Amino acid sequence: MPKDSFIAAKSAADPLNFALANCIRALSIDAVNAANSGHPGAPMGMADAATVLFRKHLKFDASNPDWADRDRFVLSNGHASMLLYSLLHLTGYEDMTIEQVKNFRQWGAITAGHPEYGHAKGIETTTGPLGQGIATAVGMAMAEKLAASEFDGLVDHHTYVMLGDGCLQEGIGQEAISLAGHLGLGKLVVLYDDNSITIDGPTSVSFSEDIPARFAACGWHVQSCDGHDAEELDAALTAAKAETAKPSLIAMKTIIGFGSPNKAGTSGVHGSPLGDDEGAAAKAALGWDAAPFEIPAELALEWHAIGSRGADARKEWEAKLDAHPQKQAFIDRMSGKLPAGYDAAFKDALAKLAAEPAKVATRKASQMALEALTPAVPAMVGGSADLTGSNLTRVKAVDTQYTRETPGRYIGYGVREFGMAAAMNGLALHGGFIPYGGTFLVFSDYSRNAIRLSALMGIQTIHVMTHDSIGLGEDGPTHQPVEHMASLRSIPNLLVFRPADAVETLEAWDIAIRTTNKPSLMALSRQGVPQLRSADEGENLTAKGAYVIRSFGEGRDVTLIATGTEVSLAVEAAEALAAEGFGVAVVSMPSWELFEDQPEAYKADVLGNAPRIAIEAAGKFGWTRYVASENDVIGMPGFGASAPAERLYEEFGITKDAIIARAKALMGK
Amino acid sequence: MPKDSFIAAKSAADPLNFALANCIRALSIDAVNAANSGHPGAPMGMADAATVLFRKHLKFDASNPDWADRDRFVLSNGHASMLLYSLLHLTGYEDMTIEQVKNFRQWGAITAGHPEYGHAKGIETTTGPLGQGIATAVGMAMAEKLAASEFDGLVDHHTYVMLGDGCLQEGIGQEAISLAGHLGLGKLVVLYDDNSITIDGPTSVSFSEDIPARFAACGWHVQSCDGHDAEELDAALTAAKAETAKPSLIAMKTIIGFGSPNKAGTSGVHGSPLGDDEGAAAKAALGWDAAPFEIPAELALEWHAIGSRGADARKEWEAKLDAHPQKQAFIDRMSGKLPAGYDAAFKDALAKLAAEPAKVATRKASQMALEALTPAVPAMVGGSADLTGSNLTRVKAVDTQYTRETPGRYIGYGVREFGMAAAMNGLALHGGFIPYGGTFLVFSDYSRNAIRLSALMGIQTIHVMTHDSIGLGEDGPTHQPVEHMASLRSIPNLLVFRPADAVETLEAWDIAIRTTNKPSLMALSRQGVPQLRSADEGENLTAKGAYVIRSFGEGRDVTLIATGTEVSLAVEAAEALAAEGFGVAVVSMPSWELFEDQPEAYKADVLGNAPRIAIEAAGKFGWTRYVASENDVIGMPGFGASAPAERLYEEFGITKDAIIARAKALMGK
Repeated sequence: MPKDSFIAAKSAADPLNFALANCIRALSIDAVNAANSGHPGAPMGMADAATVLFRKHLKFDASNPDWADRDRFVLSNGHASMLLYSLLHLTGYEDMTIEQVKNFRQWGAITAGHPEYGHAKGIETTTGPLGQGIATAVGMAMAEKLAASEFDGLVDHHTYVMLGDGCLQEGIGQEAISLAGHLGLGKLVVLYDDNSITIDGPTSVSFSEDIPARFAACGWHVQSCDGHDAEELDAALTAAKAETAKPSLIAMKTIIGFGSPNKAGTSGVHGSPLGDDEGAAAKAALGWDAAPFEIPAELALEWHAIGSRGADARKEWEAKLDAHPQKQAFIDRMSGKLPAGYDAAFKDALAKLAAEPAKVATRKASQMALEALTPAVPAMVGGSADLTGSNLTRVKAVDTQYTRETPGRYIGYGVREFGMAAAMNGLALHGGFIPYGGTFLVFSDYSRNAIRLSALMGIQTIHVMTHDSIGLGEDGPTHQPVEHMASLRSIPNLLVFRPADAVETLEAWDIAIRTTNKPSLMALSRQGVPQLRSADEGENLTAKGAYVIRSFGEGRDVTLIATGTEVSLAVEAAEALAAEGFGVAVVSMPSWELFEDQPEAYKADVLGNAPRIAIEAAGKFGWTRYVASENDVIGMPGFGASAPAERLYEEFGITKDAIIARAKALMGK
Repeated sequence: MPKDSFIAAKSAADPLNFALANCIRALSIDAVNAANSGHPGAPMGMADAATVLFRKHLKFDASNPDWADRDRFVLSNGHASMLLYSLLHLTGYEDMTIEQVKNFRQWGAITAGHPEYGHAKGIETTTGPLGQGIATAVGMAMAEKLAASEFDGLVDHHTYVMLGDGCLQEGIGQEAISLAGHLGLGKLVVLYDDNSITIDGPTSVSFSEDIPARFAACGWHVQSCDGHDAEELDAALTAAKAETAKPSLIAMKTIIGFGSPNKAGTSGVHGSPLGDDEGAAAKAALGWDAAPFEIPAELALEWHAIGSRGADARKEWEAKLDAHPQKQAFIDRMSGKLPAGYDAAFKDALAKLAAEPAKVATRKASQMALEALTPAVPAMVGGSADLTGSNLTRVKAVDTQYTRETPGRYIGYGVREFGMAAAMNGLALHGGFIPYGGTFLVFSDYSRNAIRLSALMGIQTIHVMTHDSIGLGEDGPTHQPVEHMASLRSIPNLLVFRPADAVETLEAWDIAIRTTNKPSLMALSRQGVPQLRSADEGENLTAKGAYVIRSFGEGRDVTLIATGTEVSLAVEAAEALAAEGFGVAVVSMPSWELFEDQPEAYKADVLGNAPRIAIEAAGKFGWTRYVASENDVIGMPGFGASAPAERLYEEFGITKDAIIARAKALMGK
């Protein structure tokens, strides 16, 4: 029995729920104490609500964590990871053993400081960077609605999110809320852990919004309740599910570190272990007397029953799938298998470029690729952060607008780059979709951390980033990427493409579509380029990352390495040098990452032993990987300027003449 | 007279205001047509409101654009730049000649595609990246309130913002709105250009919020009005100024491209020239018959009168300043002059470290530096994005919390990294303040584009980024920066520091405080490091960017280049190599940018001719600037992991033994 009268009162209404929640609280106290680091406050405060959710509402079956139609549960305030690990352990997820819980935050454990997607079943997405959990969950809910419209009766699940003040202070939280409200994502339910505490102290230091009113203004169904009252929580969740036209917010008034006699309700319990004494005192106050990491048998049984609560529903669903006319299509889609017609679509598109070379901007080439490939890949879902006509992301097969009435394959994300990238992560994580979305390359700054999360999780998202250099011209330096190629190439596990022409652009799309375990990003031009490739090479040369696209003269006196729109410039310079009798190789390098993956011999062959020059209308940072010094890079010395593109290339010295001059200097001529 | 009856009706209430607004519309049509690129729609739609604002409310004097107590006007939807250029030209800002307007978006003109700070007087901040204008304006309004509290009677001005849907869709917009409402910035007035159009079409594609309700939920005073009705606008602005406890929103219903017979109210007028025919038709509809770029004399006179409307008030203010006991202090503060006591404070702090070496984390060293320097620099205003206890940004002299009741030198920005960085830009742009703000280095991703804008504008902001590597330990890969050093070093005009010990940290602060024309960013450790410098060198070695911090043995067989926490590791490895008889130089490189600025001879001397190894607990990208290959970098191969820091260094091979092994391999031993 709880020793504390306030706590006792909270427990009285539903003693079993309270006792089950104490299992979470006790494990959280123990694991954080054992690790001597972590965040006990939020799991202790949200334990009651999480218990109600898992016990009475969440559709899941711990023995079949990959059940396609399970409800998705996203812990947006990822620092509360022990809440999730406790739930997974208690409900009987096979991989979440007590040993893993004991090894919280240790090397090799699946119980990282913040939930990491892929570490354990039941972690639907990586969270920790605040605001992104809810934004990713919005993508999941969008996926659900779209998949439900495609596969009759096979998809019908909720997406539940728990989040705290931090997620609502972050701007991306608002982008997500706004988009969810706009699209009327009726099966999205958010439980807000309103504990009035942030790291710096009471929320009154920095936060005084009327949160329910903000959500209401964005078209949400809004409720408030006591986050420690099982009955109120149950009623609120029931009402939230009953409202199908709007996403639902349940603002739960909670006490952070609930149970801790001396730290509850303070920022001291947010990110530090309770310690042995306060941990013991909290357990005493909660009426908990089991040994550390031990769960009383009857409660363990009860939790296991919760974990298998959904088994019948899961079996029914499986039976339904078995008898369903779209069975195989659904299985293929969810497993990410490319349709049989895909190869032919790609080859046809390539043949078409061989027959009729296209002198177009690479953003236009990208649209042509999408036009050709998307009919063969129904999983592809497009969109743009309000730059459709510039990004050229909309094509015939991906034209139906995703609206609140009818989900479609084209999503108007609005001017919400970060929210878009996170929603794309959610679409990918849900399964069944390959999301691609567009914005200007410079605004990858806004969406950057979601792209990073995509790379960290190893999931397939495709970022269409147009207007990739000073070549965009008059919009000026705020819109001209300079450092972005380097800054994106520096992100691990991200494929960055800067294709030179229509063929490379098509090849890049082919790679991005086939690469299921990492995100891809295309840097595409506003301005036109000639088609340099005859397209009959018989292999995807872009997949090699770099290759000799032109070779002039006998031997090699100099190598010009270029990317994107500067490859044709390099070819022009090479032709002029060749006319003077020099041996010149032009290397097109659409992807540094793929080139690094090639055998050493191939790399040496492509790069050659002659002096090298790199040409890219971007900052020079990083190019010393391939050239001797930044003096050998024909690129941008700093920020751009506002003027027509040709003038900018001239003024910033990214010219044929500059390449020739540097080449001659290097060759000692 | 307008030919269009709807337009005629709009003009009837205040024909003069309408005619004055037509000057803006005509110039916008002409300049965008001449450039054959640009955004005519927003200037045409907002012209009436801007006219009312400049004509009746904005406190300014075109002949004295630097008047310290002028109202600040921020065009947050920067693509509407022709609105601002028109206003500056019409009101008589000396540098904004008609030639500049005619050269809109051309090389060398001050009339860039988006307003660029520093190009022309009257451009208070660079805008274009949506949402950042309002967020920067919030910083300006914060600055006003704080300066007013410091300089009795000398500071009392408003900050006006015009913005569109894009700024409100961007998450950073919400961060700004929330913070402004929380702090009760009563002199901030936002005019929302509610034109129901975004690039992708009607806002209904992606946006269906009740904007006034959202602002109200965030504690704003809210009004709505017809954005083409001068009387309503005037009344709304008057009421907004009368409300001093809350920031004010005026939601103006407007028609984008107002006047264009065939394009008004459509997305077609957003970002494309009207063209000659539609431009002529629009002018006809508006009743405008002057030649291109010509302003009828009586209207030109009227506008000039508006430009000098504030002259008397400015003179009165100057007289007040002349007689003010704080006159010199105010002038010094606004001009960014460091107080006389600063040098001594820095030298004392250095002497103290020499006398009592500090073995502390560099974040702690940063706090010690702040403790020592901030009493001497009243301009410094600190804060954190809800990580005060981790960033260690709060010190005795910067301890008074900035609240709605009393502005103070310490700002609780909340979990709003992007909003913080943009507000810091506003604090710096306002004048009188050197803002510094803290978050975790990994979350520089969130604030990145505001840091970029700071670098582009060349203004002084100081970013305190702690937890700078896997050394943060258990929080895991979402919180561990890997690519961030490279991605920040790739931003032009940004000083990035990763100091090795308490002395370098103090020196970095000294440089950041003295460097007024660019932002600085400190990457600081969570974990402790020994103090390597005796601190009696007599010069600021960090200012050289890199220097030999230790030299062992005769000659140089190998050079170890390291930054931050890895410098002491390099020294340990060097000692072991020296014990085996090798000549080893250890180079500490706290700032790549400052090192690049050194004379070639110095650089060659520091780097030496021996084989080099770089050691940094970060991604290897970019290090080939200083070492032969990424194989010679002891760094991170990819993302981090969750575990205690020591274990992570061990597992990822950033160890003394790895350095020694690589050194021997390079030396052929």
